Amino acid sequence: MNNEFTHFDSKGNAIMVDVSEKEVTSRVAIARGTIYLGEIALEGVMQEKIKKGDVLGVARVAGIMAVKNTASLIPMCHTLQITGASIDFEINRENYSITTYCTVKLNGQTGVEMEALTGVSVALLTIYDMCKAITKDMIISGIALVEKSGGKSDYVGKEVAKSIREEIREEIEMEMKKEAKMLEAKKKAPDIKGIFQGESK
Amino acid sequence: MNNEFTHFDSKGNAIMVDVSEKEVTSRVAIARGTIYLGEIALEGVMQEKIKKGDVLGVARVAGIMAVKNTASLIPMCHTLQITGASIDFEINRENYSITTYCTVKLNGQTGVEMEALTGVSVALLTIYDMCKAITKDMIISGIALVEKSGGKSDYVGKEVAKSIREEIREEIEMEMKKEAKMLEAKKKAPDIKGIFQGESK
Amino acid sequence: MNNEFTHFDSKGNAIMVDVSEKEVTSRVAIARGTIYLGEIALEGVMQEKIKKGDVLGVARVAGIMAVKNTASLIPMCHTLQITGASIDFEINRENYSITTYCTVKLNGQTGVEMEALTGVSVALLTIYDMCKAITKDMIISGIALVEKSGGKSDYVGKEVAKSIREEIREEIEMEMKKEAKMLEAKKKAPDIKGIFQGESK
Amino acid sequence: MNNEFTHFDSKGNAIMVDVSEKEVTSRVAIARGTIYLGEIALEGVMQEKIKKGDVLGVARVAGIMAVKNTASLIPMCHTLQITGASIDFEINRENYSITTYCTVKLNGQTGVEMEALTGVSVALLTIYDMCKAITKDMIISGIALVEKSGGKSDYVGKEVAKSIREEIREEIEMEMKKEAKMLEAKKKAPDIKGIFQGESK
Amino acid sequence: MNNEFTHFDSKGNAIMVDVSEKEVTSRVAIARGTIYLGEIALEGVMQEKIKKGDVLGVARVAGIMAVKNTASLIPMCHTLQITGASIDFEINRENYSITTYCTVKLNGQTGVEMEALTGVSVALLTIYDMCKAITKDMIISGIALVEKSGGKSDYVGKEVAKSIREEIREEIEMEMKKEAKMLEAKKKAPDIKGIFQGESK
Amino acid sequence: MNNEFTHFDSKGNAIMVDVSEKEVTSRVAIARGTIYLGEIALEGVMQEKIKKGDVLGVARVAGIMAVKNTASLIPMCHTLQITGASIDFEINRENYSITTYCTVKLNGQTGVEMEALTGVSVALLTIYDMCKAITKDMIISGIALVEKSGGKSDYVGKEVAKSIREEIREEIEMEMKKEAKMLEAKKKAPDIKGIFQGESK
Repeated sequence: MNNEFTHFDSKGNAIMVDVSEKEVTSRVAIARGTIYLGEIALEGVMQEKIKKGDVLGVARVAGIMAVKNTASLIPMCHTLQITGASIDFEINRENYSITTYCTVKLNGQTGVEMEALTGVSVALLTIYDMCKAITKDMIISGIALVEKSGGKSDYVGKEVAKSIREEIREEIEMEMKKEAKMLEAKKKAPDIKGIFQGESK
Repeated sequence: MNNEFTHFDSKGNAIMVDVSEKEVTSRVAIARGTIYLGEIALEGVMQEKIKKGDVLGVARVAGIMAVKNTASLIPMCHTLQITGASIDFEINRENYSITTYCTVKLNGQTGVEMEALTGVSVALLTIYDMCKAITKDMIISGIALVEKSGGKSDYVGKEVAKSIREEIREEIEMEMKKEAKMLEAKKKAPDIKGIFQGESK
Repeated sequence: MNNEFTHFDSKGNAIMVDVSEKEVTSRVAIARGTIYLGEIALEGVMQEKIKKGDVLGVARVAGIMAVKNTASLIPMCHTLQITGASIDFEINRENYSITTYCTVKLNGQTGVEMEALTGVSVALLTIYDMCKAITKDMIISGIALVEKSGGKSDYVGKEVAKSIREEIREEIEMEMKKEAKMLEAKKKAPDIKGIFQGESK
Repeated sequence: MNNEFTHFDSKGNAIMVDVSEKEVTSRVAIARGTIYLGEIALEGVMQEKIKKGDVLGVARVAGIMAVKNTASLIPMCHTLQITGASIDFEINRENYSITTYCTVKLNGQTGVEMEALTGVSVALLTIYDMCKAITKDMIISGIALVEKSGGKSDYVGKEVAKSIREEIREEIEMEMKKEAKMLEAKKKAPDIKGIFQGESK
Repeated sequence: MNNEFTHFDSKGNAIMVDVSEKEVTSRVAIARGTIYLGEIALEGVMQEKIKKGDVLGVARVAGIMAVKNTASLIPMCHTLQITGASIDFEINRENYSITTYCTVKLNGQTGVEMEALTGVSVALLTIYDMCKAITKDMIISGIALVEKSGGKSDYVGKEVAKSIREEIREEIEMEMKKEAKMLEAKKKAPDIKGIFQGESK
Repeated sequence: MNNEFTHFDSKGNAIMVDVSEKEVTSRVAIARGTIYLGEIALEGVMQEKIKKGDVLGVARVAGIMAVKNTASLIPMCHTLQITGASIDFEINRENYSITTYCTVKLNGQTGVEMEALTGVSVALLTIYDMCKAITKDMIISGIALVEKSGGKSDYVGKEVAKSIREEIREEIEMEMKKEAKMLEAKKKAPDIKGIFQGESK
């Protein structure tokens, strides 16, 4: 285990680490993250999809553009010439969430995990932005590296970390069902002000 | 509740919504999110802090710059002239995590929740970037709006949503403790290869 | 008629003109432009559309983001806080072309025609980019202001200018038909190398 | 001929195509496009030139900076380290137009035609911007690839495409002469309001 | 005198200060700075000017674009919609230097001195870049605010500060003359290697 | 000595010079520059440092981000993939100034002196920005290349240039002491309005 902060020099100041001597290798990183939308917003995304309105299409473009923009967002990241990037979505109807995956490839001297994580984050923020007129009770969670290969050593998300994420997901699923039921109940009850603040930006 | 996707026109195409007729009001939004670092990385952040290396200082600058950069990241966001922005950190030693808050102010025609959420996300990604030489088993979670005021209606994070987040936190805390124990055990056992992939980017 | 170049000072040097004293008015500009794709590429765009691949969706996002980016591209343009932007497409099956319209709104001191023209140009370039693996024989033409309102005086594309554009369109249509016939003929003839350079970037 | 859209994956979603396996070769692309200014604006550009005001100088800088900015404008374009870029202008006094050429060089894995086309487009938009206080009856036309070399196959603008462009040019030339005559006539007639909307932005 | 650092909150952390309550006033700032080029490079700039090569034209465009870009460079600066910007040059043949002035205007809540200083700095760096194939013995000096008006109080460069700058200028002038003489002498002596490292980037 | 302006083609027009044929070598450049703050502002920077407010930390991040941003600021600079960057500060208590050094590394075809100079300039501008609420009587001076290696020839700041800088520094130091004394005197005298314009932006 490398127990040093490579972004600080020997005096403890932030630097952009020197990778001049690192080998150029073929590198891949995959990251993921999930946005919990609730039932109504997820239905909106799904239906619009059918009616041509394309929340996920816009989020995919935003994510890919963000991958290319990573070095101007994350101060100590190197500017890279990535050779490929893609964004995938997995719709989880059971807990009203969308999981986003971002895959980034590079032939280069540093890894692309920050690029993949940034692509995921911006894609999720874009979904949030496009749904926030419906609800603001959304949560973005579980942004993590799934795997990387091609550097000093490969990485596959550790089992213990995966189990945490599984439990978070189950937990939230349960809570979301609870919330959906409450909502259901509220709908039948007349005029309960304030349950949704559904303001458009 | 506003049950429409305002980012799509009547034909379902993405647009940047027209806010010409909206009133200019004084607006504030606060967002938050958490990164679970594990024990070793959190200690690293804390100690470096003392030794002048300043992970949180770099993350704060990155977050504030990202707030100003939101409209070039999120496709349908308006370009805004925010009047103030700040980033705050809360270190949670009990579960080895850091919670980031971003507050954004504007006198304008649209809300600033996307700016606050983007500021939080980029600050958290920066912490990840600066710690990833120590561990890659980090998770960014619970990115959500805390409150906003100044638009059509105010918003305070709903109780049910808060409780979800509380439980996620407890869950992760528990898991992290488990992991920490495992780690402790591993340390005593000689040469267990692969428990950390601790590669520097 | 204002017969001066407002982007030069009295000594003839480029400046960003001072608009401090101009009135804040509600402004709208609409611009348009056309890309001639040829039959095969247009069919590709149309079919992909159905199969979910969305050339026009990506072009729409690119155009809207470019509208917000105008001042960083066109040196003497002012940074503006546009209040709305949209991109529309008109598919012209008869001459295998797509016409793009960009509408931009602002409450401000300067017009938004450059923003609308930039949005159109970048949307068209994006279509080109996404089709260039099929053919490189594409032409982008007829980028012009359709109308603007809200400044010192309104503008509607002059009749004579319109007639030019009409004739260009007819001309190209005719040529494209000719080309389509040639292509048809070539397809029947075996192995005529070089008629398409169809290289992917 | 490559009859596939390389910017979509097998499911039809937009991706930034993987070029990791492509060979690094020396690549060149040349693109061109024309702005029809009309007599008065072209004279303005020419005279200012002499008087040191330098519309074309500003447009050249804008075009070269846009070449470097292509990947942040066109969503599926790769970030490239171009090794050279230049912008040339050809003034066509006979039809009051300016043709812009952009040449881009790269040692890399993907072509630079989008960079050359973007350079041309932004140089032309800059000319438009700097002349729009004189007239808004300008058209940007004929943006196309002139030639490229260095990838899977070379490309030289096809004859049929060239002939189209020739005819467009003749057509517009004729129309512009007509317009110039009308203008001439109008000048002799006193006070015909509205023939030019010549508003400065 | 305001003896507080406004870019830090009460806990000493960097923030983007809240200007929501500040009055919108008409503001102007003028900054200046000088690049000492030496005789040969200055002659180059002057002669190229005549032969149409336009170092100062390119530097002017770069400076104006940098003014608009200030908030993305200086972390705690607010994004502003400046209403006008210009760059002026003063050629000092006696000490082989060029002084650059940048004037920026705004109707807004914060001053524009950082925008003026950034415009000056980038214009000077651009001159450096375009001359560095001739000599690398250039110095950029005396970047300072000349005056500002329109905020809480006006500012005119203090006399004492001005006198410092005067003396610096005289000093450098003297040194430059000495250097020029040495150079003169060297030219007559054959083959003194290394006096100029004149490498092109 | 190379007596040509490489940023102009044979006709004198600005171009981004073709470096396709240049060798890829390992390159380093170091640049420096100084900001004269005066006694009160320097004390502010030093004390805040201790109290955790970190002017130099923010300036360091700004400088490193600017290094990566150089090609979008300086029109004829190539986009580069620098492999390392760092910013160092030297506090000169005797003349109340801070000297900034920026070191940049690259394996590439062009030098990185513009990147190092841009990093220094933006770090100094950031210090200015964060101190301008205390005083506006600051000067940024002595921005120059310290050394570079790895291209056609190495460069070490010439002795004569160094001596100029030494004398400038001594001069300013003397002046600053004079000013400090005056200030001292003023403080004892009651109510001398206007000696500091200390307005916050």
